[in-house]
Parts: sequence; structure tokens; C-alpha cells
Amino acid sequence: MKRKITLKQIARELDVSISTVSKALRNSAEISDDTKQKIQAFAKLYNYRPNNIALSLKNRRTNTIGIIIPEIVHHFFSEVIRGAELVANKRGYNVIIGLSNESFSKEVINMEMLANGSIDGFILSMSKETLQQQDYHHFNETMSQGMPVVMFDRVVSEIKCDKVIVDDFNGAKNAVEKLIENKCKSIALISTPDYVSVGKLRTQGYLEALNENNILAESKLILKIDDTVDYEVHLDALEAEIEQLFKANKKIDGVFAVNELYALTAMKVARKLGLNVPNDVQVIGFTDGVLSKHATPSLTTVSQHAQQMGEKAAQLLIDKLESEVNPADEEFHTVVIATDLVERESTK
Amino acid sequence: MKRKITLKQIARELDVSISTVSKALRNSAEISDDTKQKIQAFAKLYNYRPNNIALSLKNRRTNTIGIIIPEIVHHFFSEVIRGAELVANKRGYNVIIGLSNESFSKEVINMEMLANGSIDGFILSMSKETLQQQDYHHFNETMSQGMPVVMFDRVVSEIKCDKVIVDDFNGAKNAVEKLIENKCKSIALISTPDYVSVGKLRTQGYLEALNENNILAESKLILKIDDTVDYEVHLDALEAEIEQLFKANKKIDGVFAVNELYALTAMKVARKLGLNVPNDVQVIGFTDGVLSKHATPSLTTVSQHAQQMGEKAAQLLIDKLESEVNPADEEFHTVVIATDLVERESTK
Repeated sequence: MKRKITLKQIARELDVSISTVSKALRNSAEISDDTKQKIQAFAKLYNYRPNNIALSLKNRRTNTIGIIIPEIVHHFFSEVIRGAELVANKRGYNVIIGLSNESFSKEVINMEMLANGSIDGFILSMSKETLQQQDYHHFNETMSQGMPVVMFDRVVSEIKCDKVIVDDFNGAKNAVEKLIENKCKSIALISTPDYVSVGKLRTQGYLEALNENNILAESKLILKIDDTVDYEVHLDALEAEIEQLFKANKKIDGVFAVNELYALTAMKVARKLGLNVPNDVQVIGFTDGVLSKHATPSLTTVSQHAQQMGEKAAQLLIDKLESEVNPADEEFHTVVIATDLVERESTK
Repeated sequence: MKRKITLKQIARELDVSISTVSKALRNSAEISDDTKQKIQAFAKLYNYRPNNIALSLKNRRTNTIGIIIPEIVHHFFSEVIRGAELVANKRGYNVIIGLSNESFSKEVINMEMLANGSIDGFILSMSKETLQQQDYHHFNETMSQGMPVVMFDRVVSEIKCDKVIVDDFNGAKNAVEKLIENKCKSIALISTPDYVSVGKLRTQGYLEALNENNILAESKLILKIDDTVDYEVHLDALEAEIEQLFKANKKIDGVFAVNELYALTAMKVARKLGLNVPNDVQVIGFTDGVLSKHATPSLTTVSQHAQQMGEKAAQLLIDKLESEVNPADEEFHTVVIATDLVERESTK
């Protein structure tokens, strides 16, 4: 059996990036003519079949939606998929899922694979690497070939498509306001680097809540965790970083964490240092996870309504697939899902 | 755009089951000639394109593996996928995922969709409904058309294919032996109905451990939870059932639960009834979940090594895809993954 050569193999053989191969095969002006010729010739020689979305769309509808998520071992993304599936099934569509594993190349490869006649449109959340590299050509070119994309959670303004986002800014602001209301004087933030858009917005919400309440933000109270490390695996390293934060700032009496793992680890560290949650330190996390509910004490959270996000994303995509609007007159919508503060035992 | 008609639509229009449509289109002897003619004529009229695996296999390899799992909001299945992905990527394959949502029809539809030229082979775990209905035609026919299938976790002996299973029987037996060693005299079992093969094997392991230690098994100590209810949503109902078990059997001093949720709920109920875990009641769950680690007290578990299962399944499948063996000489393997008892705070 003759194997079809893949983007990845071409990139490896010619020692260029997957992005370069992908762009060269689409004849992008960003790539030099020399490189384009080399890549195109190689692809032809090895019988690479470029993705021909326009053709497959003309010929048939698959009634299938492709969802690409950054990781599967993550309750938030599972819940989004559950929501998208619910709406898709109701409207007569199937769902298939691809994983980017937070890698730009895998995201490109997965889109290439699924767009190749298997699906009618995408629902996706970008990988961290894509956000870092700011290389969005694969999204834009998929759409320009007539295949609609709906993005959720991690989005960027540079891409023109339908989007479903959580109100990260106000969710974070409300959480921090709750801590202030509850008499916290020294509120720490445990966040991610700013290139993760949701981390950035939640950090802004934290700062705004402090600002409106005339509390000076202190950089030493803000811990930005390098999230390229898999902390599910290296829990000790995460714990050490948070312990450092507590030890350097003995007055901390409130913590707002941008995800569940950071929040639970903060509670664990507090306990280890002899601090009672919520009496000495109150903790709020931003999450829909299952751990929060089952933790002792259970964790107060900003709920993201992940399932609702998935439902909304599927609605937007299917509406677009079934609309008769001329693509030139197309409008894009950004749906903002409001958060709720779910009060549990980790706050007073 | 003309839509391709789906199996589901044909079934609905002709008021027959999806299984009947699927069998009729494959000309199965199980279906009457009348019905076959009707279905085949309808499918032809509406331009249904039957899945032609043999043809697509002859023409090309996709370097893609399809994984079908019963549900996505489930740490065990996520971990299996993580493992399968790891091996697949290393060997140059992509992975796409479909969900059956524990429904027989969705399983058939998903296999149909993915087998239609998108993938080279399947890794899958059967839906509960398929296990209940014992209708396996879609697996057997997919394989007879030359597309290999590797099953994991939920398997049945009637299907001849490679399988990866957990040693459910010995895992359960070891757990219950541990409770007996720890001086538990009245050990309850919280399990699922017997048609779920893993529930059955774990129940047998429980009974064998009691038997070998000359402890009489008592049916009133065995609670079989109706798992067609979504207990993540209806936690109260699950709690009520387990509370009932404790109240009817005041001497319970050990609990073995076949999954994480049942085990954690048992700990919660014990606490509510004023019992201390592990001093009054010791609890062990069968799971790889994340909740166990983070629970208070943390839960002693029988670890299933889900990631390893996924790795092994991908290895078996890719070995088969790349082997040159004549299908007539094909051998099938069942790999049994041993469990480990991970001792935490819920046992002495």
C-alpha cells in the first residue's frame, strides 16, 4: 500500500517548518519563490494531495462538525464538547474531535486532515503555541476557502470569525470584589503568562477590582506560572512556586487563581503553612472543574458555563452552514457568556 | 448544496432501526429480502453513499487512527486517548475521536462516518447500549472489510480482534483482600449492573476474595447502581442509594466501589452519618481519576493505568496496519494490563 505523504514528512525532509510547507503549498506571498518551488516540486513528486476544501464542499455536505481542542484531559474542554455535541446531534450533525496538544504544528495538521472532505466546518480553541507564535494563516485560509470556523475561549481579534468567549474580565473582577467585600486586604493573583489571552483578561479584571477599591496593586503579589510545564505531572514544582509566594508575603489573606489547579494548590499550600481556609486565607478559582466541588473545603469558583459555550458555538456554526447569505455579506458575531460566582466553603 | 442522506435519516424515514438499515445496506442475511429491497431502493433514490472501506484502503492510507469512546467527560477515557496519541504521534499517525455517548446508534453512525475513508483503523470501547443489546454487526463487518479494530476496557469474547483489558478480576480481588487484611469484617460492594463487563468482573473479584477468606458474601451488602442515570448530574440520588445501604447495614466497616464517583460518594455519606474514614470505615475505589488524589481523605484506589492501555492499543493497531501478514493467517492478541493498589488515606 502506498502511503500518502503528510505535511509533517515534507517539513522534516526539507528541514523547514510545517507552517512554511503549509504556506508554500497554498502559494502564500510570505514564502520566497525558491522555497515555494522546492516544496511544491517535492510534494508533487511524493504525490501529496493538497486539501481541496472548495471542491469537496461543492460536491457534498458531510453533516459533520470538526472540533479541535488543545488538550483532552481537561474538564473545561470536555464540557464544551458535550455542549457542542448536544446541539449538533439535535440538528442532525455528527461531531469528530482532533487534538492539538497545545502544539501549532499539530493544530495545522489536524485542520488539514479534517478539512479534507471529512467535515463541514470547525469549532476550535487555539493552542498555546499558536497564540505565542501569532501565526494564524491556517485559520484564515480555511475560511477563505469557504469552510466556516467558530472559535471559543482562546480567541484573537486578528481573526475574523464567529467567536464564543467567557466574560473573563468581569468574571475575575467580580471574584476579586467578593474577596474585598469579605475584608481581604492583601489579595494575591496566581495567573498565566500574558500571551494566553484568558490569563491576560483575568489579570486585568483583578487589577481593575483593586483599582476601583483604591487598593494599590503590588507586583510581588502577582505570580505568573510558566504554563508550558505540565503541572499535572509536576505538582511539586507548582507547589514550591506558590509556597514561595506565601512565604514572601505573610499578609496574604485572599487568593484569586485563574484556574482550578492553581486554586487547589494554593489551598494545599495554605494548609501546609498552618493557615486555615477560609478563616486566614480565602480562595477563589476560575473554573468549571469537578475538583472544586469535591475539594475540602470546597472551592468558591467563577463558573465558565463551558457546556453553554459549546452549545452556542455549535449553534453559530450550524446557522452559518445552513444560511443562504452571500459570503460577501457575511457578518461575524462574538457571543460573550456571562460568568457566575459559585460560593462554596473557601470564602466566608 | 445537496446533502448526503445519513443512516439515521434513512432509519427515521422508513421507521426501522439504524442497525436494520446498516445490516440491509450490507446485504446481511439477518434481514428479510423485502426489508432489504425497500431500504436499498430508498438509499439509492436519495443518493446514499455506502461506506466502501475496501476501495478506500486500496487507494490510500490516511495515517490516521479513529478512536471511539463512550463519553468524553471521563478521566479514564481521556487518559486512554492521551496514551494512544502519544504512541500514534511517535509512529507518524494522527488521531481523531468520535463519541458514542453510550448509544448504540451513535456508535454505528460514528464508525460509518470515520470508516468512510478518513482513517486506517479503529481503537474503541463499546457503548453500554451495545453491550446491553449484544448487537456487534458493525464491528464484525468493519473488520471483514479489512479495517482492523482494537478494543479496550469494555470487550466481549464474541468479537475476534485485538483487545486491551484491565485485570478487573484481580484488581478487585486485591483491593478486597487489602480490606480483609486491614480487619474489615463487613465489606460492602458498590457496583454496576452485570451487563457492564467490567462491573461484572470486579464483582467476581470481590466475591472471590471473600470466598478465599471464608467470609460469607451477603447480597444485602451488594449495591448495584443503575448506571443509565447520569449521576454526575443527579448526585443526590446516588447519595440517597448509598445512604440507604449504610443505614440498612450498620456494621459496614469496609467499602469497595467499582468507580471513583461511587467511592467518593461513599466517603461523603460515611462522614454525614458521623463515621470516620478510615477509622470506622475504610474505602477503596477502582479508578485512575484525579478526584481520588485531591479528596480529603485521599482515596486508596486500584489504578487502571489508562494511559498505558491507550499506548498498548495504539501499538497493537499500528503493528497490524504495518504488518505484511496475510489476513487469513491473522492472529489476535488480548493484552491484560495489571493493576496496582495505590494506598492513600482512606485505608489504614
